[in-house]
Amino acid sequence: MTTLRKQRLGTCYYPEHWPRERWETDAALMAEAGISHVRIGEFAWSRLEPEPGRYDFGWMDEAFDVLGAQGLRIVLGTPTATPPKWLVDTMPDMVALDDRGDPRRFGSRRHYCFSHQGYRAECARIAEALARRYGTHDALEAWQIDNEYGCHDTVMSYSRAALDGFRNWLAQKYQSPDALNRAWGNVFWSKEYSSFDAIDLPNLTVTEPNPAHVMDFWRYSSDQVVAFNRLQADIIRRHSPGRAVSHNFMGSEIAFDHYAVGADLDIATWDSYPLGFLDRDTSDEAVKLRYLGVGDPDLQAFHHDLYRACGQVRNGQSEGRWWVMEQQPGPVNWAPFNPAPEPGALRLWAFEAFAAGAEIVSYFRWRQPSFAQEQMHEALLLPNGDRNEGWHVCKKVAGELNALGAVAAPERADVALVFDYESAWAWAIQPQGADFSHLDMALRFYRALRRAGVSVDVVPPTPQAVQGRKLVVLPSVYAGSAALANALSGGDTHLIVGPRTGSKTRDFQIHPNLPPGPFGALTGVTVTRVESRPPFAPVALDNGTLFEGWREFVRHGDDVTVQARCADGHPAHLVKGRVHYLAGRPDARLADSVVRRVLADAGIAPLDLHRDVRIRDNGAIRYLFNYGPEPVDVSPWTGKGDALLGETPLEPRGVMAVRRA
Amino acid sequence: MTTLRKQRLGTCYYPEHWPRERWETDAALMAEAGISHVRIGEFAWSRLEPEPGRYDFGWMDEAFDVLGAQGLRIVLGTPTATPPKWLVDTMPDMVALDDRGDPRRFGSRRHYCFSHQGYRAECARIAEALARRYGTHDALEAWQIDNEYGCHDTVMSYSRAALDGFRNWLAQKYQSPDALNRAWGNVFWSKEYSSFDAIDLPNLTVTEPNPAHVMDFWRYSSDQVVAFNRLQADIIRRHSPGRAVSHNFMGSEIAFDHYAVGADLDIATWDSYPLGFLDRDTSDEAVKLRYLGVGDPDLQAFHHDLYRACGQVRNGQSEGRWWVMEQQPGPVNWAPFNPAPEPGALRLWAFEAFAAGAEIVSYFRWRQPSFAQEQMHEALLLPNGDRNEGWHVCKKVAGELNALGAVAAPERADVALVFDYESAWAWAIQPQGADFSHLDMALRFYRALRRAGVSVDVVPPTPQAVQGRKLVVLPSVYAGSAALANALSGGDTHLIVGPRTGSKTRDFQIHPNLPPGPFGALTGVTVTRVESRPPFAPVALDNGTLFEGWREFVRHGDDVTVQARCADGHPAHLVKGRVHYLAGRPDARLADSVVRRVLADAGIAPLDLHRDVRIRDNGAIRYLFNYGPEPVDVSPWTGKGDALLGETPLEPRGVMAVRRA
Amino acid sequence: MTTLRKQRLGTCYYPEHWPRERWETDAALMAEAGISHVRIGEFAWSRLEPEPGRYDFGWMDEAFDVLGAQGLRIVLGTPTATPPKWLVDTMPDMVALDDRGDPRRFGSRRHYCFSHQGYRAECARIAEALARRYGTHDALEAWQIDNEYGCHDTVMSYSRAALDGFRNWLAQKYQSPDALNRAWGNVFWSKEYSSFDAIDLPNLTVTEPNPAHVMDFWRYSSDQVVAFNRLQADIIRRHSPGRAVSHNFMGSEIAFDHYAVGADLDIATWDSYPLGFLDRDTSDEAVKLRYLGVGDPDLQAFHHDLYRACGQVRNGQSEGRWWVMEQQPGPVNWAPFNPAPEPGALRLWAFEAFAAGAEIVSYFRWRQPSFAQEQMHEALLLPNGDRNEGWHVCKKVAGELNALGAVAAPERADVALVFDYESAWAWAIQPQGADFSHLDMALRFYRALRRAGVSVDVVPPTPQAVQGRKLVVLPSVYAGSAALANALSGGDTHLIVGPRTGSKTRDFQIHPNLPPGPFGALTGVTVTRVESRPPFAPVALDNGTLFEGWREFVRHGDDVTVQARCADGHPAHLVKGRVHYLAGRPDARLADSVVRRVLADAGIAPLDLHRDVRIRDNGAIRYLFNYGPEPVDVSPWTGKGDALLGETPLEPRGVMAVRRA
Repeated sequence: MTTLRKQRLGTCYYPEHWPRERWETDAALMAEAGISHVRIGEFAWSRLEPEPGRYDFGWMDEAFDVLGAQGLRIVLGTPTATPPKWLVDTMPDMVALDDRGDPRRFGSRRHYCFSHQGYRAECARIAEALARRYGTHDALEAWQIDNEYGCHDTVMSYSRAALDGFRNWLAQKYQSPDALNRAWGNVFWSKEYSSFDAIDLPNLTVTEPNPAHVMDFWRYSSDQVVAFNRLQADIIRRHSPGRAVSHNFMGSEIAFDHYAVGADLDIATWDSYPLGFLDRDTSDEAVKLRYLGVGDPDLQAFHHDLYRACGQVRNGQSEGRWWVMEQQPGPVNWAPFNPAPEPGALRLWAFEAFAAGAEIVSYFRWRQPSFAQEQMHEALLLPNGDRNEGWHVCKKVAGELNALGAVAAPERADVALVFDYESAWAWAIQPQGADFSHLDMALRFYRALRRAGVSVDVVPPTPQAVQGRKLVVLPSVYAGSAALANALSGGDTHLIVGPRTGSKTRDFQIHPNLPPGPFGALTGVTVTRVESRPPFAPVALDNGTLFEGWREFVRHGDDVTVQARCADGHPAHLVKGRVHYLAGRPDARLADSVVRRVLADAGIAPLDLHRDVRIRDNGAIRYLFNYGPEPVDVSPWTGKGDALLGETPLEPRGVMAVRRA
Repeated sequence: MTTLRKQRLGTCYYPEHWPRERWETDAALMAEAGISHVRIGEFAWSRLEPEPGRYDFGWMDEAFDVLGAQGLRIVLGTPTATPPKWLVDTMPDMVALDDRGDPRRFGSRRHYCFSHQGYRAECARIAEALARRYGTHDALEAWQIDNEYGCHDTVMSYSRAALDGFRNWLAQKYQSPDALNRAWGNVFWSKEYSSFDAIDLPNLTVTEPNPAHVMDFWRYSSDQVVAFNRLQADIIRRHSPGRAVSHNFMGSEIAFDHYAVGADLDIATWDSYPLGFLDRDTSDEAVKLRYLGVGDPDLQAFHHDLYRACGQVRNGQSEGRWWVMEQQPGPVNWAPFNPAPEPGALRLWAFEAFAAGAEIVSYFRWRQPSFAQEQMHEALLLPNGDRNEGWHVCKKVAGELNALGAVAAPERADVALVFDYESAWAWAIQPQGADFSHLDMALRFYRALRRAGVSVDVVPPTPQAVQGRKLVVLPSVYAGSAALANALSGGDTHLIVGPRTGSKTRDFQIHPNLPPGPFGALTGVTVTRVESRPPFAPVALDNGTLFEGWREFVRHGDDVTVQARCADGHPAHLVKGRVHYLAGRPDARLADSVVRRVLADAGIAPLDLHRDVRIRDNGAIRYLFNYGPEPVDVSPWTGKGDALLGETPLEPRGVMAVRRA
Repeated sequence: MTTLRKQRLGTCYYPEHWPRERWETDAALMAEAGISHVRIGEFAWSRLEPEPGRYDFGWMDEAFDVLGAQGLRIVLGTPTATPPKWLVDTMPDMVALDDRGDPRRFGSRRHYCFSHQGYRAECARIAEALARRYGTHDALEAWQIDNEYGCHDTVMSYSRAALDGFRNWLAQKYQSPDALNRAWGNVFWSKEYSSFDAIDLPNLTVTEPNPAHVMDFWRYSSDQVVAFNRLQADIIRRHSPGRAVSHNFMGSEIAFDHYAVGADLDIATWDSYPLGFLDRDTSDEAVKLRYLGVGDPDLQAFHHDLYRACGQVRNGQSEGRWWVMEQQPGPVNWAPFNPAPEPGALRLWAFEAFAAGAEIVSYFRWRQPSFAQEQMHEALLLPNGDRNEGWHVCKKVAGELNALGAVAAPERADVALVFDYESAWAWAIQPQGADFSHLDMALRFYRALRRAGVSVDVVPPTPQAVQGRKLVVLPSVYAGSAALANALSGGDTHLIVGPRTGSKTRDFQIHPNLPPGPFGALTGVTVTRVESRPPFAPVALDNGTLFEGWREFVRHGDDVTVQARCADGHPAHLVKGRVHYLAGRPDARLADSVVRRVLADAGIAPLDLHRDVRIRDNGAIRYLFNYGPEPVDVSPWTGKGDALLGETPLEPRGVMAVRRA
């Protein structure tokens, strides 16, 4: 399989939406804009198979020909996110049920239940038909399976198929109801089951169900996504040797284990909508206003680093192949408010991704449709086919990429931040404080690292992923293991351990040794009490920083130094050798100070970046970005290498590239 | 049919709620208060037909006699908003289903599905029985069909009857599934249908359904209201010649096309609750506090002007017969908070309606019931039968009307503001910015016009309605047509075109020429991008005003002058001859300045009213109102005519009438 | 039956959660901490009866033996709040349906419908089995029936069983549909029924159902709780003579009549979670922040006084036996945020309860479970079995109790505050102003009384309960009766009547004489209008205080003095002899001033307590509490008796006890 080293641009195209006579024009305009890759087909089932069993590949054949004639490389999507009406009508129980038990019906997309075996068979059939027909086509570069797993809250289904599947999954896992009862603690509230067939899905209960019950259902549901994806991946690989298999993940989506899906992919891709995501961010209104037209300076970057870890996962580590499959090209249609990108933002986003090692940045979509749900989603072309701003940005960026000779050059970073899907589930299931989440905890540390100008790998909580790093951060990793603790305890690795880390067993029980469980020896602390506090009641530390919303009361050994205390005297920041334990959720100033100190200890000199500036190294090039509304003198951070792109002071929303020293 | 010219008072009476021996007292008290019209019967089905097919008209006969004996003119309501339990029990599927598919059961009111043919037949039966019995009664002035269509969100039903009806309606409209697929753009997300019987109602979808699908369902649902109403109107006209047919519309209700229902009515009436409505208004808290006891100075007036356009619609224009059928008489029971009217407010409301040409202002209700849902809703009499404040206000206003010789004298206004129900649906279905609505847009311009002291007709988007006006305002009219554009382009008409106008086709697609579509030539602009922004991020204009939440990026021709720009340089207010295009949602200051300038251009001198003062001309009389808490010198706006009522300075919540010059 | 005079400590223990070999250690640790009482068994059905009809009492026998061997007195809970899965599977319709008609399924607790006769029979069976086995065991002190009726909104069920039961209940109450139609006022909106079988439950209606319909359904539902409880009480008394019967009520729970359930109990107990409750309080953020770690200084105390009225109710009055069955021992798991108690808070809570006459304060729970829903709920022991803070507090408090020789000595207070469950339902069903509630009204007066240092009995609205008091407060008692008015009109009783009192009949109709109905002669006022106002629009009084959200317009007789007026001149505080009428919802300053004046009139000198200080007399001891974060000089309020505990200045969260003069 070819690895794409040269960094290129792509777009998402729906030939079936436009008159046949327009296609050549579109292909020529793509080429003119410097676009090399084009994704097609991922919602076209009703055109590929207009009636049960009657395939119509003629138009797709032509699309391959027209696009291929311009030298465009095709990513073909399997259309399984949009089963056609005739298919739903033949098996009405293929739709998911929501947590009230109501069917989630046809009329939009993703109207299927991952557990439904009949639907899986249909997906295998259409995927095989496509793979047989196009698997070895010259113009075919790669595959995309389905589209945005989890979008619109579609991982969980409370259907009969899910119930049957879940019971079977539990029986496989636990082998006996007694074992399950013990693992879940079902003696509590007389919830003991005498048969796997007595277990319901964890919805519609009077008050909260057993968190262990929910956790297993989330695991089961995630496993169904993995199995659903693998089924198509295996078929495609059989018929399309040498072509990469991908899926386009989403932002801030945690309902399934992306590492596990990624293990079956060659390339992880994701769909990056910086302005649409800003609203989800926890920043305050002043921050939202500052970055309204450019997006959160760190959120996209975090996902770049996360999805770099989801491509080609082998033995717990990633080969790092990743793309942005959908890049926002203008205002979108799906956020409560949909502002326009500031001038420069589209270009900045592209280079942020390339700087993080993306092989392709692909704009969604080529031409704005005049019809249906996404008619207000901008594109590279206007609805009438004229060039829009995005087209011109593509052309410019394509030229700049060529001039830079930019190549994807992911390296293993010295710093690893653990992001763990099961931990995200654990705190969603049992937050204990209403605003506690694993993603938020991870972002607090990620932002501090990025403000220090440091390259970070976001990684799963595996021994392989953390081994040999200079600094590892465990932000609220719910369980952990002896193997992970072991991998962290040897060598020179510095470690920052956030609150709640190691507090649970994998059975969703409090660790028998009390938190931080497997990390007790490493950290030298024992947590005896936790409290969550409302936003108006943070806990002050003696160094002027804050714990926001979460604070722990700990005992510690004699070999532990208390670096900072809460105002009421309880230890806040404890240090044992190279291991730091934070007994609360740090505000930005605390996260910064801890991260900068430990970086320095680990021999990584932290930078002191301007609030709007971010930097990123890729191969021989250092990129600097100005997310702010005013020009910034970036000379302190350029190094001594030649300027390749842009200049200082760096313009608002501007990009600079310099040769690394 | 007699047109009521003399302006009179009415009330709403429920003889079935009170002992028979009280009726004469009530009738005498009504007459004493100067009340001439009384509505009865509209919720009395269980008394008119206590068992299936057994009518009991005796008590109603007596009520006609008792009321008629006092010279009271009766408006008889058909009781179809409250089908009795025995009827629901004979056809349980007559109730509507909500958007979750749950039945909306018996126990309050409006528990029926407009699409249910069996229920329609029952309505025809009871309406015919009433029309036969009372259609030619001497005391009968008019009919009211049903009560408050749409109240409690009852236009839409997701029942089997609605599904069947909708499929048939679609088949009639599109003739072939392919035509429908093309119109809706169903190729998007593989939503194509091969049969009309495959189409579901647009509820319970995984994410938003196709907006064109929803739009057609709203049209279908509105058509059912029209048909439901027409069925009874036709029966009544057959048996009750010469009596006016009416329905009482609501405030801020947009779920069906009121013009279309109005086409089958002789008189439009509406139910005006200024304090209950204040909470729905978008004004800020300071404004709410200022007008807590008197209501929004413009919202009632807007509805007066709107419903004047819904009576006797013939050939796209209204004859202008309208009433207030229910006027708030004190605190109500249904808003989250229900304050008391300030002293003077009841009288002010009555004269505002008369000034806008109302034939009747009818207080709801005569006597406060001590029982059931509305027991906390005040009335002209206290629950114990004593006179309440409202009774005394009636008596006073009746005397003043007589002294003024007030008559309803609607005239065609020079200024027309287009309000379009399909546009209201379009932006409810696809707001793109969470706070965008057609009613809000219309009110922004209406307020500016009213603050300038100008009389306004609110009209549908028809050529007839706008023809020959001096100024026409199109606030976010989603589609438009060549005929409308044509009617606006000739002559001396000045035109203000708001954002989003002409942006869609009637198939809910972006106009192929880009917005403003049919108004492109008139305005000289082309919209290439729109953005919606959160409330904390308005767009500043170079003249110090704001675009709030919505802004467009436009190209324009050489014959267009840019009157104002956004701070970032994009055109904001563009002028081509007599046509003004506003590329955003104006704040109050911008709306004022644009409206005042264009009024002046159109030869209508704008007044500069005090913030609390409003004026209105009706026939020979100019009315001035002080909505504020302090006396105001209104002499700048009285003209030179004789004072007929009140004096300047005008007391808080006071009314002044002067003879027009 | 023994009355426990000596005040003691208890805990809640789940032997079934822990290894058999640990039990002796636990019992010894309890004894060491000075704990004398232990509740067991209330969720253990699946262990007591693992399969249908197969009882397993062996482990429970051993638990009795182990605990009894340490001299611990056992409270045995019937496990009917957690029916096991096999039981639900045999009668799936035993679960409640929510107001959408969806089943509330197995998987947590309280998954039963009070109306289900089959489930009741099962409860009788298990209760009888337990009562036969343990009813005369030497170690058995008392029984608890079920657990926390109403928790998780479980009083109301919209099941078939409830529908059948409700219809029958209505038939018994009204005897004829006509009588019901008249009582409910069903002529309104044609809601008349010709048969009891035609009446639905009041859910899923299009808009609000008839409030009289809802009121009767709430009464019916409350009656089912009473009947459910009585069934087990009767069985237990048959088999367990001399042992007290109790139930553990909740905080702020109003969905059933606690006095009526209490009539069948010997001891009322309740579950006190001061920090978990703080969030529900109406106080502002500054107050919440001040008391974040100690809880509202008045809310727990109010419930102590309320539940003292729910134990052994005989002839409308209580014998006053009450316990805290569950006392918060640390952070809990169920509030949105769960802060840690401040140092001292656990001890303060215990003494507040003892000062209010509690016989037992029992900490929930003994040891924190590592599994299932409540794993984050702290306990006296840590999850690993080590002593936690609460254990040490127990030990300390036990010693202090002994030293004090503290005994429960409830006395009849001079001041009675009426709290009435039907009134709470009335205002929940028809608030008229969104924030109006009976509990809030009661608390406004309760806080003022407690700030004045006065002992208060919270009582039902019965003649017996108010007879002979020096001061009675009626805060928004919806109905009242001639008998109650009579009991209040004779003698020296001073009376404060709040707004809405007497405004309704028991049929949920406005009183025919207008409000305050039966209290019209006493108060000399007649209410002709009410208004509710949003939070930003309070009504100012001429004395600088406020009516918040609710204000009435009243007429009054010549023998009434207007003590204060609203700024617009309407009477606000009216006095007729010893009777005060407040025509609005008082802010804290108004409540304080009225209460203090009337107390003085009644010969009860009000104290002027520091904002953080509260006092309470029990028998020979006066207790003083400092809820604040700073030491307070409490010497002005200690009296001249010897200090028994603590000292002044009183430490933060501190307790002082002095001998009463």
